Amino acid sequence: MADTFVIVGGDAAGMSAASKAKRDDPDLDVVVFERGEWVSYGACGLPYYVKGEIQSLEALVSVTPEEFREERDIDLRTGHEVVSIDPDERTVTAESEAGTVTESYDHLLLAVGAAAVVPPIEGTDLAGVYTLGSMSDGKELREYVARARDGESFQQPDRGPACRYLEDCAGPVGVVGGGYVGIEMAEALAANGFEAHLFQRGDRVLKTFSEATSERIADHLGDQDVAVHFDADVRELASDAAASGGTDDETVAAIVTDDDRVPVEMVLLGTGVRPRTGLAETADVELGPTGAIATDEYRETNVPDVYAAGDCAEARHVVTGDPTYAPLALTANRHGRAVGQTVAGTPTEGGGVAGTAAIKAFDVEAARTGILDHEAAREADFDPVSKTIEAKSRAGYYPEGGTVTVTLTADRNTGRVLGASLASEYGEGAVHRSHAIVAAITNGASVFELENYDLAYAPPFNTTWDPVLVAAKVLSGTLR
Amino acid sequence: MADTFVIVGGDAAGMSAASKAKRDDPDLDVVVFERGEWVSYGACGLPYYVKGEIQSLEALVSVTPEEFREERDIDLRTGHEVVSIDPDERTVTAESEAGTVTESYDHLLLAVGAAAVVPPIEGTDLAGVYTLGSMSDGKELREYVARARDGESFQQPDRGPACRYLEDCAGPVGVVGGGYVGIEMAEALAANGFEAHLFQRGDRVLKTFSEATSERIADHLGDQDVAVHFDADVRELASDAAASGGTDDETVAAIVTDDDRVPVEMVLLGTGVRPRTGLAETADVELGPTGAIATDEYRETNVPDVYAAGDCAEARHVVTGDPTYAPLALTANRHGRAVGQTVAGTPTEGGGVAGTAAIKAFDVEAARTGILDHEAAREADFDPVSKTIEAKSRAGYYPEGGTVTVTLTADRNTGRVLGASLASEYGEGAVHRSHAIVAAITNGASVFELENYDLAYAPPFNTTWDPVLVAAKVLSGTLR
Repeated sequence: MADTFVIVGGDAAGMSAASKAKRDDPDLDVVVFERGEWVSYGACGLPYYVKGEIQSLEALVSVTPEEFREERDIDLRTGHEVVSIDPDERTVTAESEAGTVTESYDHLLLAVGAAAVVPPIEGTDLAGVYTLGSMSDGKELREYVARARDGESFQQPDRGPACRYLEDCAGPVGVVGGGYVGIEMAEALAANGFEAHLFQRGDRVLKTFSEATSERIADHLGDQDVAVHFDADVRELASDAAASGGTDDETVAAIVTDDDRVPVEMVLLGTGVRPRTGLAETADVELGPTGAIATDEYRETNVPDVYAAGDCAEARHVVTGDPTYAPLALTANRHGRAVGQTVAGTPTEGGGVAGTAAIKAFDVEAARTGILDHEAAREADFDPVSKTIEAKSRAGYYPEGGTVTVTLTADRNTGRVLGASLASEYGEGAVHRSHAIVAAITNGASVFELENYDLAYAPPFNTTWDPVLVAAKVLSGTLR
Repeated sequence: MADTFVIVGGDAAGMSAASKAKRDDPDLDVVVFERGEWVSYGACGLPYYVKGEIQSLEALVSVTPEEFREERDIDLRTGHEVVSIDPDERTVTAESEAGTVTESYDHLLLAVGAAAVVPPIEGTDLAGVYTLGSMSDGKELREYVARARDGESFQQPDRGPACRYLEDCAGPVGVVGGGYVGIEMAEALAANGFEAHLFQRGDRVLKTFSEATSERIADHLGDQDVAVHFDADVRELASDAAASGGTDDETVAAIVTDDDRVPVEMVLLGTGVRPRTGLAETADVELGPTGAIATDEYRETNVPDVYAAGDCAEARHVVTGDPTYAPLALTANRHGRAVGQTVAGTPTEGGGVAGTAAIKAFDVEAARTGILDHEAAREADFDPVSKTIEAKSRAGYYPEGGTVTVTLTADRNTGRVLGASLASEYGEGAVHRSHAIVAAITNGASVFELENYDLAYAPPFNTTWDPVLVAAKVLSGTLR
């Protein structure tokens, strides 16, 4: 009898594993339990859907449930929530509207993802408070924007920043958190004519990027009329009821910080995600130091034949060699695929992560990779040195072009490249240029090697020394 | 007394060496002999100047002679042609309008560059036949274009392709050679309303790129109304005189191939370059197997304290470890700089080359790196396997975007990445994406490592698996 491969969770990691396992071993019975209705969707596209650049949620789906079932012969069961695992009996139990079902497995993959963090403050359950973790979140936010744009909730508040997009601003609206989701949603809202306020704990957005990148993005957000409130520890989301002394209005009306109270009609919480680990813990699957599910290099957990991949699991950092939690799409796809390949008979590691990330904020793009934070570098026994340079994105004489800001970090003793953060105008290549540094980091290259990379050059694409090489040259100069 | 560092040639390699040596050791006497008037110019920008996208030749100069002399304290002598070297006496002799001068050196750098190849056929000395190797070539070509655009030489020939740019085509004009210069000049001429014919020996343009890239570029040239003549071995450039039986008209009038005779008013020879080695040979400086000056890893020749760098010299290929001739701007800059650093007291290798190159052709961009040719790979004891993929340049649901074509070559036994060729619409990142592969090649990474690179991803920049990773995934799949 053929083995049964049971997968819990039908997004990037889960469906990559299902597809790869079935393709490599068509005899395998592959069963996927997904509690929702959507599978294999590009959650990274949700901000662009809310913004209105993508017209349907369906466009974010790369493969439909029908295609998985009919073309790939995968037993995909949507609307099924797995509620327990019995590792001794090798079964999972799932609940659906039709009742409870128990399924045996030979191999089990936990690909249950992460949940949006809701900060422990008052008012997060008020109407008008959103997160952006799921397709239904995206749908609700799009509907909110559509309502506002149709004028149903338009106001003329006492505005701070001007709205460039519509004659009359909607809102104001508040975004809590200056990470990827917060910034992308601030853009989506501002571009739709909302007076957008971004609340950032601490003194910079995108804290995992370099200070130079954070500053460039924050400046650009300001240029685009997003009001960025720094050092703004949000204490409470207040309702009109609170404001007016106790009516029944339970819609959010203000964001309250230590020293400010900003009126808002809507709040988007972009305060990060945390791995979903509840199901794993019921089966005595161990968590790692980051709080996500611990695995070996094949993504197998401490429980034999139980794997974990994607946003619920840890990965190994290519620089430190330590477990890290970097819940992003590529890792989920890659590790899911590797598990599928392993289960189908070819043990596959799937590789580490470099903590690489990219973002577009209006007309600026940025990427980061590796270890930039000096304290984190020192904890991993490096002696970090960083340099930031600004260089032209194309030959100086070439018409068009902009500026690339590169921060590069290396170990003083060995010259090993540890991390980088790049920013440029959108289209001027900060993100794709970061690829070279990801490669250098992954291969353990030194900055002396990086500065000698024979990178492609022609005037429409860079200066003779690409900005990446300029950064390497400057940094290596300080290490010799 | 301070050492004297004499440099022959005032372009990329020479002035990089001069600047770096003087910066690192201000006591050094640095003397540069340049036979022309221009120094430190971006020859790569000449096609854009001829096209009219750059308005002055001066814009191509990164540092002026005055700046070198006054701000960098370099004894730059333009209009001085070095005619002999005496390695025993450690002197060079230069001629100028003012007479002959002999200068002693402690360290000597030959940075004399390369000369445009003129094919050994009849008619290359006719009026209207150009090469594009120097600033004065660029000036003459720009003047030719300007005259034609002012109507002085406009005609209404029996045209093949339509001209999209002007109501009346000028020309026809012929470009011989489908390499970088040929293609960039075909664009410069066609964009100015010339009926442009490109003559390519063999069946594809850009022979050092992959066939998929060549085809994409050739198709696009056709779309842009450049008539590409394949398998066109040019036998002769014919004048009107020849055509009409012996008048005095000595301007080019036709390009004659084995089986065709195409009327043209002007010809651009883009048939490659060859290293200038005459001066070196007079001093018994040895040439290598490629015909360029042989050096060690510090760019020192067989003659002690005589260095060679830039387009006159060989470099070591990072994949094969063998000497190669890759006369491009970055190598000249990097190796020149390394010699400057060495002469100033810090021996510096400057690194190998990967044969990386980039080109923009109208609205398509392309890059290549490493070893793509299977025969060349086998000569270097590899067992090459190649795969070509097409992938979307951005998330499928993201508005905008195009297609990236990636050809990836690896060694079957070890999986080592040997080379790559990429093409995309201009702005869709083929060139910057090639950076990752240059890094992989330089670090000796395998395709199994490359497919696990944690490259930056966000919907405006790529699909979750960047096209580079898709190519690696597909190629590695054939090697397992």
